[in-house]
This record gives sequence, C-alpha cells and structure tokens, in this order.
Amino acid sequence: MALYVQKYGGTSVGSVERIEAVAEKVKGFRQQGHDVVVVVSAMSGETNRLIALASEIQERPDPREMDTLVSTGEQVTIALLCMALKARGVDARSYTGSQVRILTDQYHTKARIQDIETDRIRSDLDQGRVVVVAGFQGVDPEGNITTLGRGGSDTTGVALAAALKADECQIYTDVDGVYTTDPRVVEGARRLEKITFEEMLEMASLGSKVLQIRSVEFAGKYKVPLRVLSSFQDGPGTLITIEDDETVEKPVISGIAFNRDEAKLTVVGVPDIPGVASRILGPISRANIEVDMIVQNIGADQTTDFTFTVHRNDYDKAQQVLEQVVQELGARECVGDNKIAKVSIVGVGMRSHAGVASKMFDALAGENINIQMISTSEIKVSVVIAEKYLELAVRALHSAFDLDSSDTVRE
Amino acid sequence: MALYVQKYGGTSVGSVERIEAVAEKVKGFRQQGHDVVVVVSAMSGETNRLIALASEIQERPDPREMDTLVSTGEQVTIALLCMALKARGVDARSYTGSQVRILTDQYHTKARIQDIETDRIRSDLDQGRVVVVAGFQGVDPEGNITTLGRGGSDTTGVALAAALKADECQIYTDVDGVYTTDPRVVEGARRLEKITFEEMLEMASLGSKVLQIRSVEFAGKYKVPLRVLSSFQDGPGTLITIEDDETVEKPVISGIAFNRDEAKLTVVGVPDIPGVASRILGPISRANIEVDMIVQNIGADQTTDFTFTVHRNDYDKAQQVLEQVVQELGARECVGDNKIAKVSIVGVGMRSHAGVASKMFDALAGENINIQMISTSEIKVSVVIAEKYLELAVRALHSAFDLDSSDTVRE
Repeated sequence: MALYVQKYGGTSVGSVERIEAVAEKVKGFRQQGHDVVVVVSAMSGETNRLIALASEIQERPDPREMDTLVSTGEQVTIALLCMALKARGVDARSYTGSQVRILTDQYHTKARIQDIETDRIRSDLDQGRVVVVAGFQGVDPEGNITTLGRGGSDTTGVALAAALKADECQIYTDVDGVYTTDPRVVEGARRLEKITFEEMLEMASLGSKVLQIRSVEFAGKYKVPLRVLSSFQDGPGTLITIEDDETVEKPVISGIAFNRDEAKLTVVGVPDIPGVASRILGPISRANIEVDMIVQNIGADQTTDFTFTVHRNDYDKAQQVLEQVVQELGARECVGDNKIAKVSIVGVGMRSHAGVASKMFDALAGENINIQMISTSEIKVSVVIAEKYLELAVRALHSAFDLDSSDTVRE
Repeated sequence: MALYVQKYGGTSVGSVERIEAVAEKVKGFRQQGHDVVVVVSAMSGETNRLIALASEIQERPDPREMDTLVSTGEQVTIALLCMALKARGVDARSYTGSQVRILTDQYHTKARIQDIETDRIRSDLDQGRVVVVAGFQGVDPEGNITTLGRGGSDTTGVALAAALKADECQIYTDVDGVYTTDPRVVEGARRLEKITFEEMLEMASLGSKVLQIRSVEFAGKYKVPLRVLSSFQDGPGTLITIEDDETVEKPVISGIAFNRDEAKLTVVGVPDIPGVASRILGPISRANIEVDMIVQNIGADQTTDFTFTVHRNDYDKAQQVLEQVVQELGARECVGDNKIAKVSIVGVGMRSHAGVASKMFDALAGENINIQMISTSEIKVSVVIAEKYLELAVRALHSAFDLDSSDTVRE
C-alpha cells in the first residue's frame, strides 16, 4: 500500500473518453490498495480557447483576471474526472487550488507555491476517497486565484507529493519515459529505467521536453521520487530520483540531448579590456534577448573574439543590437550563423570518469564534424556544430557511449 | 450618485461583442458618477455545454461535482467582463461566489443564500472600482462550491442589492420590461412603468417568464427596488416595487397572464366523505407530480367531482396514478383534458374594486367562451378555458379592462 500522486496532462484528459480511461487507470490503483491523489490539467485545447477569448477583448489581458479565466479549465476537468470515478464506484472528491489551499505568492500568471494545506486531503484519503486536485493553480494570501504558469500542473503534482510525503509522484504523458536520445533521430534510442534529477535537468533544458524544468528542480529539492509514464500504454516509465550510492557500475553517459533552436553571434576583434562582456551582453539583455552559451577566446593581438548563442527567433534582433555595440567598442565586425545545432552528452557518471570530453570529440572527429563552440558543466558537455551534421553527430555519440546496446540498462 | 446592482443574463453576455457592449453600458453609469456592482451569468450555451459533458460521463452526475463544473461558466464571464472594462479604462475586479463570500446552505444544485460578506466589495467600490460578481453560485460553510439552481443569477443580484442596500437592482434581459400581456397575442399590449412585487409574482408564476420567481420573492422580502430592462435597447424598463400608498387612482388590473402548459383531470363520482382530497392528491404527490389549480364541486347525490390541473408533461402519468385511485375510492371514473389554457387577470387594484370577477366573466361570455374552472386569490382571478379560445379570451380581457389605451399608464 503506497500513496501515489498522479498527474495527467491535457492530452491525457483531452476528451470524455480519455477522462474515462484515466478513471479506469486510477480505479486499478485503488483496487491494488493504493491511496491516490490525482492532479489534472485542462482538457487539451481549452486553455488556448480561453486565452484566445481574452486576447479578443484586451490586448494585454489583466493578469489577475487572466488567472481567474484560465483556472476554469482545470476546474472542469476535476469535476468530470470525479464523476467518471463515481460512475465506476470509486469515491472521489475534487478540489480547486483555492479549496486545497495551495497558497502561492501574488505574482499572477507565474505564481510560486508557498504552502499547501493537507488536512482535507488526508481526511479524504483516510475515508477511502480518491482526491482530485486542479493543477496549475493556487490562491494568494488575499484569496485571489493565481496560476503557476504554463506546464505548472507538473509542479502542482510534485508539490503535493512533497507535502503529503507521497511514495512517488507519477507524471503521465504521451511518451512512455525518458530516452537516451530522440528515437526519431537514433533508432536504437532506449528508454532509461532511472535517471538522476541533475541529469534530467540537463536533459530537459537541453531539449528533451518531457517534464517542466521547475517541477524537476522542485522534486530534487524535496527528494520526491518522480516517474514519467505513458497515459496510453502500460509500462514502468522512467524513474527520476536522487543519485544512489550503490556500488553497481553506472554508465558514464545517460543520454544525449540536442536542439536546433539556437543561433550563434560573434563579435570579432574586441579590444581585450575589462568590462567588455557586459558592454556586449548588457544591450542584448535590455532588448529582452536570452543568451545561452557564451565563449570568449583569448586573442594574440590584444583583441578577442566574443561568441554567444541566442534563440533563433531573436537572431535578427540580436544582430541589430550588436551593430551599435561593434561601433561603440571599436570592434572589427559582427558575424553570425543561424544554421547551427547544439549537442550535449549528459551523465552523472562523467564525474568519476576522465576522458569523457575527449571521447566525445574523438567520435565527432571520426565523422569529420567540426566543433564550433564547447561548453561544459560537471555532468554534461555541450558542443555547437553545423546544423546539417546534427543527426550524424547524435548517432555517432549514441554509439560511441554504448547507449545502443541493451545490456547497459541501469537498474 | 446611486449604487446599482446590475444583472446581465446569458444572452446579454453571449459573445465577446456582447460582453463589450455590457462594458460600454457599465462605463456609462460610472461616468455618471454611480457605483456599480455587476452580476453575470454564463455565456449563453456554456452551461448546457458543461451539463452535456457531465451527462456523457455519469447518468445522474454527482451534485457536488456538478456545481464545481457548471460554476466555471460564470467564472469565465466575470474575468472577460473585467478585461473589457479595463480595456476601456474602467477599473474593475472580479469575484467568484466563493471569493465574495456568498455563503449558502449545503444543498448542491439548489442551494439557498444564507449570508453575504460585503467588506471586500465595499472596499473596491470605495476605491472607484466596478465589482463584477459571478451569479448563480456560492460556497457552503465547508468551502464546497454550490449553485443556486437555474436562473439563480437573478437571486444573486437581488441578494447582493439587499446586502449592500443598493438603490436599485437592475435585471437586464432580452425584453424591455413587463407587459400588460404577451405582445405576440395582443398587439396593444403595453409596457408597465411600475408593478408591485405581489403582482409580479402572480404574473411570473402564471407564465410571464421575465424574472425568476425566487428573486422576486427575495426582492419583496428585503424591499429591494427591482427594475427589468433591455440589454439591447435604452429605456426605463419596468420598476417592481412595494405597493405605494399614494392616492393616485390605480387601474384595477395590471396585466393578463396565461399559459397552455397545463392539463385538467377530474375524478367523477367521488364519495363525499372527509379525507378524499388527500387520498386523491397523496398518490399524485408521491409520483412527484405538481398540482396547480384544485376545484371540488359539491355534489347532489352524496358524491362529488374532484378536478385539478397538472403540467401537461405529467398528464399521462397522472392518469395512470388516478386509475388506481378511482378503484380504491369507488369513484365512477377519471376524465381528463389536455387541450386547456389558463388565463388570469392580476392587479392589486382589485382588492378595493368589487365586480372585477364578474366583469371578467361577462367579457368571456360576450365571446361565447365557456369557463371550465375558476380560482381566485386576493389579487388575481384565473379561469381555465378550452385552448382554442386562448387568444380570443386574452384580447377580450385586455380590452375590457382598458389595458389597450395609453392613458392608463401608471406612474
């Protein structure tokens, strides 16, 4: 007998039929004797429908009213799911964020959870009820409805699991787990049985969009075991957990993440004096452009080349900003490339294994792939390459780090 | 400077355009210096859409979850209306029933208001804000969302007006007031400037479906001046108020109500002994059939004929129940007629005027219309006639009581 917090996203509750399928799944867990708290999103399409209504009325809709509006999406789902459970003889009770009381700060449309009252939920669980909670929403100290921002239902699930000290927080999605890399690129990509929070954070921020980063951070902070599973097929999914100190051999690399969302900009021939970085990135930041990788090469002639990447959508805007910067700094010129891709190898195992980076570079060199930028952290190495080599690079690395073979499944 | 509570129904907020038109109207009142509290229903069609979803999932949807579900309809409208007001530079703030706090009893889907907290509303009004409240909904002492039953937004409006001691509760609908009778039947039907609560109750329950009966009762009880107006055209509407004791001459009759929703049943040859009425109506009531008019004729041969009317939808069921009753009572037979109509003249003036009933009967006799049943109260006389004579009867009475002529407008 365990206590599970299960989160079902918009696609999983996207129609009456799917809500009924979720009810069947939850009923199965109850029949096995488990306690279940369910967190649901709005039915897919509903949030966008509401946002479109708001946009028709006000160009930049009032944030407080926006939260009041979109929070109805999850409220509909909790009621329908409880009905579906009751129709199956499973006692259930729904709660909005306000009813639970999921207390947040006052930052409408991007509020953060501050506290969760668990008395009513515990009392319902004790009486054998399934508790169904609206994801993505809370209430501020003054009773205003708040939302946690898009994808916030994952965070609700993790926060509830932490508050209830649940045995596991299960995130049901349309994929059956976290993979070593994108199966559409590498045929031999495998589902991971386990991955650490840190690895998951690197994987997520680097492009594997299975879970919201904030919920993973939250789960790691409160040590909530997190499992990603499919709503539509049975299977164990992937468990995201703290690093165990078992002595079993771990693979060096857990997975390979990549994206082609970025563009690269280089300011060439920058005088090599203090304060240059901020004089380049300050105007970029003030233009609301986010920067990802940053590399500065030491120059031989008292000038340096300063390179960074931005989202591809911001490429043109960033170039315009830099034109001005080049003049002010007396730099030579600004060059850019938006046909790049970023590929990263991620794994806590690399901490204790030397030579991971060089093995990566070797594998790429073996395919004649030129590396344009390199950036490293304790558990990942990222490189920027020409976009046309992306698939080739991912497959070469997947193979080089033995991710294809089935005998390296981590348990 | 007055304080108005304005209620806009589902049709009045049925689209983004109409919500914007309501915002314009409210802005006009603010510009005149009035304080405004707005109560809104769900956008037309939305409540039915939600109910249909529920019915797909559970044959008889759980009442608590039903309230959680359908209350989202008004929540959407309050948010959108506040956005429309803010887009016009009018400061506004939305409240769900739970946020206001409109405290109700625990009877889901038909809850009754017990108390309304007005502190937050008053504070918003003091700060120059328009307050927008979700109609039709409240919260029980345990924090569960409740609804007041269909049409309950009128009740929310009146209750808020009473709690805030508003100068007027204005109900915006798709008609421009209360008429002497249905203009589709009598071309000369006129809008009334004023009508008393009691008259309105008789008019409403007899078929003029402008206002929910409960809200009129509520307004009468708390002496809240109630005004019915059109959302779509300007005009003073009809003021529903307590009977004034001005000495100005009042017309005898305010209006003529009618319906064709009823059917008539007669148990013939019932032994004239005590307890017969309950032995006939007891089984009818237990079959959940509501009875409207009841007439018992005194018989000459120690038997009596017992006649009553039910809703036409219940006609067949009532006949089945009575078959059994006829046998048990040793009555002769049960006869029925579902081709009847009820016509009523309503007016507080008839209290002080003799001969109103006979004037009514004369007018009907003048058109050779046979009266099948008669029922009277202090301020109305109702008759049942054959359905085919309905229009003829209404026109004859409208004319006989001088309702056509424009010089009897009440002020």
